[in-house]
Amino acid sequence: MNHRMIYFTTGSVLITEAALLLLPLLVSIIYRETCAWAFLITIGITLAVGGLICLTMRPKDRTLFSKEGLVIVALAWIAVSFFGALPFVISREIPVFIDAFFETVSGFTTTGATILDNVEIMSHGLLFWRSFTHWIGGMGVLVFVMAVTVRVPERSIHILRAEMPGPIVDKLVPRARTTAMILYIIYIAMTALEVIFLLAGGMPFFDSLVHSFGTAGTGGFGIRNGSITSYSPYLQWVIAVFMFLFGINFNLYYLMLLRKFSSALRSTELWVYIGIMLGATGLICYNIFSLCSGFAEALRLSFFQASSIMTTTGYTTANISLWPTLSKAVLLTLMLIGGCAGSTAGGFKVSRVVILFKSLVGRLRRVLHPRTVTVVKMEGKRIDDDTLSGVHSYLALCTLSTVLVFLLLCLEKDSVFTIETNLSAAITCFNNIGPLFSPTLSSFSAYSGFSKFVLSVAMLLGRLEIYPLLLTCLPSTWLKK
Amino acid sequence: MNHRMIYFTTGSVLITEAALLLLPLLVSIIYRETCAWAFLITIGITLAVGGLICLTMRPKDRTLFSKEGLVIVALAWIAVSFFGALPFVISREIPVFIDAFFETVSGFTTTGATILDNVEIMSHGLLFWRSFTHWIGGMGVLVFVMAVTVRVPERSIHILRAEMPGPIVDKLVPRARTTAMILYIIYIAMTALEVIFLLAGGMPFFDSLVHSFGTAGTGGFGIRNGSITSYSPYLQWVIAVFMFLFGINFNLYYLMLLRKFSSALRSTELWVYIGIMLGATGLICYNIFSLCSGFAEALRLSFFQASSIMTTTGYTTANISLWPTLSKAVLLTLMLIGGCAGSTAGGFKVSRVVILFKSLVGRLRRVLHPRTVTVVKMEGKRIDDDTLSGVHSYLALCTLSTVLVFLLLCLEKDSVFTIETNLSAAITCFNNIGPLFSPTLSSFSAYSGFSKFVLSVAMLLGRLEIYPLLLTCLPSTWLKK
Repeated sequence: MNHRMIYFTTGSVLITEAALLLLPLLVSIIYRETCAWAFLITIGITLAVGGLICLTMRPKDRTLFSKEGLVIVALAWIAVSFFGALPFVISREIPVFIDAFFETVSGFTTTGATILDNVEIMSHGLLFWRSFTHWIGGMGVLVFVMAVTVRVPERSIHILRAEMPGPIVDKLVPRARTTAMILYIIYIAMTALEVIFLLAGGMPFFDSLVHSFGTAGTGGFGIRNGSITSYSPYLQWVIAVFMFLFGINFNLYYLMLLRKFSSALRSTELWVYIGIMLGATGLICYNIFSLCSGFAEALRLSFFQASSIMTTTGYTTANISLWPTLSKAVLLTLMLIGGCAGSTAGGFKVSRVVILFKSLVGRLRRVLHPRTVTVVKMEGKRIDDDTLSGVHSYLALCTLSTVLVFLLLCLEKDSVFTIETNLSAAITCFNNIGPLFSPTLSSFSAYSGFSKFVLSVAMLLGRLEIYPLLLTCLPSTWLKK
Repeated sequence: MNHRMIYFTTGSVLITEAALLLLPLLVSIIYRETCAWAFLITIGITLAVGGLICLTMRPKDRTLFSKEGLVIVALAWIAVSFFGALPFVISREIPVFIDAFFETVSGFTTTGATILDNVEIMSHGLLFWRSFTHWIGGMGVLVFVMAVTVRVPERSIHILRAEMPGPIVDKLVPRARTTAMILYIIYIAMTALEVIFLLAGGMPFFDSLVHSFGTAGTGGFGIRNGSITSYSPYLQWVIAVFMFLFGINFNLYYLMLLRKFSSALRSTELWVYIGIMLGATGLICYNIFSLCSGFAEALRLSFFQASSIMTTTGYTTANISLWPTLSKAVLLTLMLIGGCAGSTAGGFKVSRVVILFKSLVGRLRRVLHPRTVTVVKMEGKRIDDDTLSGVHSYLALCTLSTVLVFLLLCLEKDSVFTIETNLSAAITCFNNIGPLFSPTLSSFSAYSGFSKFVLSVAMLLGRLEIYPLLLTCLPSTWLKK
């Protein structure tokens, strides 16, 4: 283990976070809010800690292996969440630390779960920071650091791999840093495009910015208690379409930039994603038709909700709890699938579902004809056994994690924490979706500190796809052989 | 495909079923019930159809391969359920065929789910037949046929494999027929033992017989509306302990008969099963303590419910819906695990959980040290890659099947079919547990014919572990190459 390199990189991440905090500081100064002090103090602390680590831990050897990559990612995410929670606590807008930590983890992991029962009383500076964490976390904290800092460690593709979701991570170009930059350029351009579309629909600039961050990271933090419900149909359509777009593998956008349209459109994952989205929208639209004023409204509500849930964003424009069972069941299924690999969306990922499905067909063929050799292919390439067993293991790990989180939540004594509520909390946090679909609770505020901690871990586990956090907690990772 | 052999074996199964129907006929004659006619007519029809098939389909070639084994098992189970439903319909005690079919499938698959809102008005003959189907289905319809008929097809181990649950099926002795006989001797002896223990506690003979059938098959059909609640604490303990015993791999009992105690007690699965059972009992006991009159009652209720749910039997002695969330959550987790492989219990099976867990640890080790070769061992033997990927595929198939059944149930229009109810129905049927844990419904009677059909298929899928039924439905199984 290259300990110095691990701490040094974590320190650099903190310095970057201090720099990013300048933006909400600026917002709070513009709105003349007292929370500006909270940002200033946080920047000071974060810079001091980050700087101290970087100065004392300057590494001689810059080599990184897969193991170090995983540990760095886990530590960096915990660190940014810890320091990112400080402005909420210092400003006393979220006075309890574990609440602020939950909210920040929920932001960075692009979950969008909240402990706030009334977001509308929050200051602009903190609302901005809350949504900005979505935007940073969406494409990856370390990918961002790699994209902006010059001194990138060698073999940093390991970091990229550990942070980017999905079963297979392609390098777009040989150098990890260039890959990171390309991803961020596409990300910034698409976010800017959404801001423009929202402004064109008459949404105020602050609202446009905040909602674009929430959409781009597929996070879901809003600034109104009714989420997106009170905005115009046009604005709802814009957000729905952009949620859908941010749920697509970013590699495809890169291919399109290179004018390789045919190879971009040959992606199996893309078509399965579109197919599931359209199928779900159609089913829900048909199912809720009688509750709506017309076809236009039914289509808008069904596409918005399907897009929001499948991309694990979590914005809403309807009270889903009043919908018929079939629509709820379809949305529940979308939750379990999630968006495309290599996008900002969370969940199990469409590509994993496709690989699972293909391997099951192969398995069936083998049961039928025991001597056949079956090959699972995806995007024209053969899926090697290691990736295949990785996908299967990931399904098992997801099931195990969700059950474990659910059981820990069930330690709550109060009777409002029903099976349904706790199961919903475990699924929505682990899959980075956000809203609590519960008949007894409207936000996570009623949960105990312990449960909020468990749910924070669940969100990190889901966002980083389990392994980084799990390995960092194993003693054998840290012991010398 | 050896078509003649497939039909011929199915025909033999029907003739055996006609013979087995003599027992409930006898019961109804003893109680002087009119349903005796229904049994007589059914025996006539079943014998005629079975005999006709056997006469016309006498096979020249008796060879069976794995594929034929799977198809035979699927067809035999569908056939016995179809003809087994006739007495209910002919006697008009369950006048609608799909209801009777659901009830019979639930019996043979040892699920114990019922469409009867009041079982106490049923005649003794039909109550006996209902529980007797549990007993036949528990150890396997075809295993029974193999144990009693002399003309066993060659290589019939394929049939045994297809019908016996679990990831690995050991032959106890080289010959399949002897294995089947040994299993049935142990099964009969243990059932008889339970009857004696129940009689000793003052339970009437008919009740003892019926409940022993329900326990032995881990089915759960009772003869009182309150399941086992109204029986004495002693009787509840007897049933609880026997449910626990029938959830253990029968191979271990065989080893004990051979006085190989040390190899029987070396089983990992056994200790994990005992550990989970004790852990769950302890947790629930602590959790419901304040609701009970004392420690003795808390222990009895918690062990009974844990044993009943984990072995997928489904008898109850308490109103679980009034229990605290933690206890419900523990029971829900037990549902997903199920009993031991090679027992009469359903579910995912303890051995699969152990194999999954070990393979995940191996996976973690590989992520940490990419060049390590990891070997998963179980019961001292190395688990080959095929078994390992089989376990992983089975988890994926279970998840997929449960979601699919759940979605199909959500097509129900009425609002009593909530997400919770439908999810509970899908899980309880697929895992062959039985009771519907729903706040809105007490039995399956309110479901539509379509949903009852879907749930019947779910029960068969769960009992036969998916492959036999799935392959029988594929056209490519039937087409010549």
